[in-house]
Amino acid sequence: MRDYAADLEMIQEARERIAPYAKKTPVHRCATIDALMRPARVDLETPQDSDVRLFFKCETFQKGGAFKFRGAINATLQLSEADREKGVVTHSSGNHAAALALAAKTLDCPAYIVVPKGAPQCKLDAIETYGGRITRCEATVSDRESTCARLQRETGATLIPPYDHPDVIAGQGTIGVEFLEQVPNLDAVVVPVSGGGMISGIALAVKALNPNCLVLAAEPGGVMGNRADCAESKKRNEVQTDMPPPETVADGLRARLGRLTWPVVRDKVDDVLVVSDVDIVRAMKLIYERMKLVVEPSGAAGLAAALSPAFADLNAKRAGWGKAARCQNVGIVLCGGNVDLGVLWKSYGL
Amino acid sequence: MRDYAADLEMIQEARERIAPYAKKTPVHRCATIDALMRPARVDLETPQDSDVRLFFKCETFQKGGAFKFRGAINATLQLSEADREKGVVTHSSGNHAAALALAAKTLDCPAYIVVPKGAPQCKLDAIETYGGRITRCEATVSDRESTCARLQRETGATLIPPYDHPDVIAGQGTIGVEFLEQVPNLDAVVVPVSGGGMISGIALAVKALNPNCLVLAAEPGGVMGNRADCAESKKRNEVQTDMPPPETVADGLRARLGRLTWPVVRDKVDDVLVVSDVDIVRAMKLIYERMKLVVEPSGAAGLAAALSPAFADLNAKRAGWGKAARCQNVGIVLCGGNVDLGVLWKSYGL
Repeated sequence: MRDYAADLEMIQEARERIAPYAKKTPVHRCATIDALMRPARVDLETPQDSDVRLFFKCETFQKGGAFKFRGAINATLQLSEADREKGVVTHSSGNHAAALALAAKTLDCPAYIVVPKGAPQCKLDAIETYGGRITRCEATVSDRESTCARLQRETGATLIPPYDHPDVIAGQGTIGVEFLEQVPNLDAVVVPVSGGGMISGIALAVKALNPNCLVLAAEPGGVMGNRADCAESKKRNEVQTDMPPPETVADGLRARLGRLTWPVVRDKVDDVLVVSDVDIVRAMKLIYERMKLVVEPSGAAGLAAALSPAFADLNAKRAGWGKAARCQNVGIVLCGGNVDLGVLWKSYGL
Repeated sequence: MRDYAADLEMIQEARERIAPYAKKTPVHRCATIDALMRPARVDLETPQDSDVRLFFKCETFQKGGAFKFRGAINATLQLSEADREKGVVTHSSGNHAAALALAAKTLDCPAYIVVPKGAPQCKLDAIETYGGRITRCEATVSDRESTCARLQRETGATLIPPYDHPDVIAGQGTIGVEFLEQVPNLDAVVVPVSGGGMISGIALAVKALNPNCLVLAAEPGGVMGNRADCAESKKRNEVQTDMPPPETVADGLRARLGRLTWPVVRDKVDDVLVVSDVDIVRAMKLIYERMKLVVEPSGAAGLAAALSPAFADLNAKRAGWGKAARCQNVGIVLCGGNVDLGVLWKSYGL
């Protein structure tokens, strides 16, 4: 009996399972951004350069342009051959929908994607590029769910939810295993949080492999600054299910913690750093200009958190506890790069 | 006595010399873009998928965001210690100026950069970020040159021109050596051409290491379509020095072939593929959307050329000569990623 939805063994198995399909994404560094990190050594009187080094796990280069493919292909591979032939279904207009369509295409089975009205065209395009079969519905949770249920009945397809599913969590956890292999001496990883599938998987992997490595969540507060359900849930030690989703530029980070992800976040995530939309866009700009990488706003939330005063404070406190506690090698998950750059192409006359 | 400004030995030496400072840039692939390559097998009657595979050498990740750092640091390292202390000077507002400023900063010596009036602010910012000392001048060749000469007299700094210099050519040639190490079975490399420093260096390396590997130039024709001096020079077998520069979106590709680069282009470059601005921007869009890489328009010219009917024709002709002549593994140099994305940040409210 596992304590949580997944464990290291499941994640290691997922890694073997998805290896023929998913990419092992590279880790990038950037000296210019390292130099922007605030000094963490409060034990020294003279101001000095930060010695924090950032390591960026580029899930932007994952198949489909985001980490979501790991969970989607892992879950689809777990289906029996008979079930797989009938296909998979989900309701989403974001990266999970595109990833599931791509996973299904990779394994030659149908993917039924329920998309609420009002979803941006570029997301629909991505789903269609990967051969996903789109069904439109109203933009309410109840209509999404009933449309999904109807499709399940009609086709026999299996529902693969975006985060609250053991195989999805285990698939995303493979990021943590890879990251610690690539940078064994990580003191912390900063992971954007929304539904919590990615951070749960990574936390389960990282804490099993190196309990001393901090797992920090980066969460948008939204334009009002008070819509961070993960931060609030951690503060109250009780999951907050009725907070409205944040209005944020980070369109991939508008979900709420799930039934399976909350216990992991509660027990395995060390702290939550809340970031503003301006922080996110500034971090995004740094990543484009200095690292020459395309990221979506959600993908930049981790860097925004690492550059925030909250991270510097946390690190300063830890420095007070002695040198070993301070985070020097900090991993950042650049989780996705699916962003509509239409305004840029328009400026070039396309 | 060398036949050309540089040779493989100089390039190998340059590689050793710059190894502590310059990055060995990675090679990326993209299945979606491979699938867009036109079929090259004219010997088969039924239409089929192309089996051309593209390999992208990401000089966008080079220090300073473009390949130019290789030549700049190689040339600066070649100076005597006394000369290096006095510094380096160049006139340019583009990637070479920023690269030379960064090289000088890396080696702790001054860089004097002559910038013509009207240069975009983002280029000035890059030069200043790297500590370059900017002197403004009129936007005429004569005022650029006289301002450079005055700075040389006043400071004793050494002129490092952007391309027509043996050490600069040898530095850029290290791209070719690395690329063939990373992808030994390349059948062709496609390299953007402007002053010709990069393609000369790469051609000298590639033809010495593997004479069967084609070296193809990608050149913008400009908005009028008739400003490709490299294509015209090759056609007439005589360098065309009086053609006006192309008005093109590829701001890094507006120079003309030089005294040292032309003989290499004449003898070692197999063909020139002329691309339009629309081709360049479309290729750029593919690189952002599908590869999640930031490139400047000049950086996308190589892909634009590989996707052009001219390349398909060339490959079809070679296929007619027998299977071994056809280009299957094609290298593309993504030469730089320094682009003003202001319109994008403005759309995000920054």
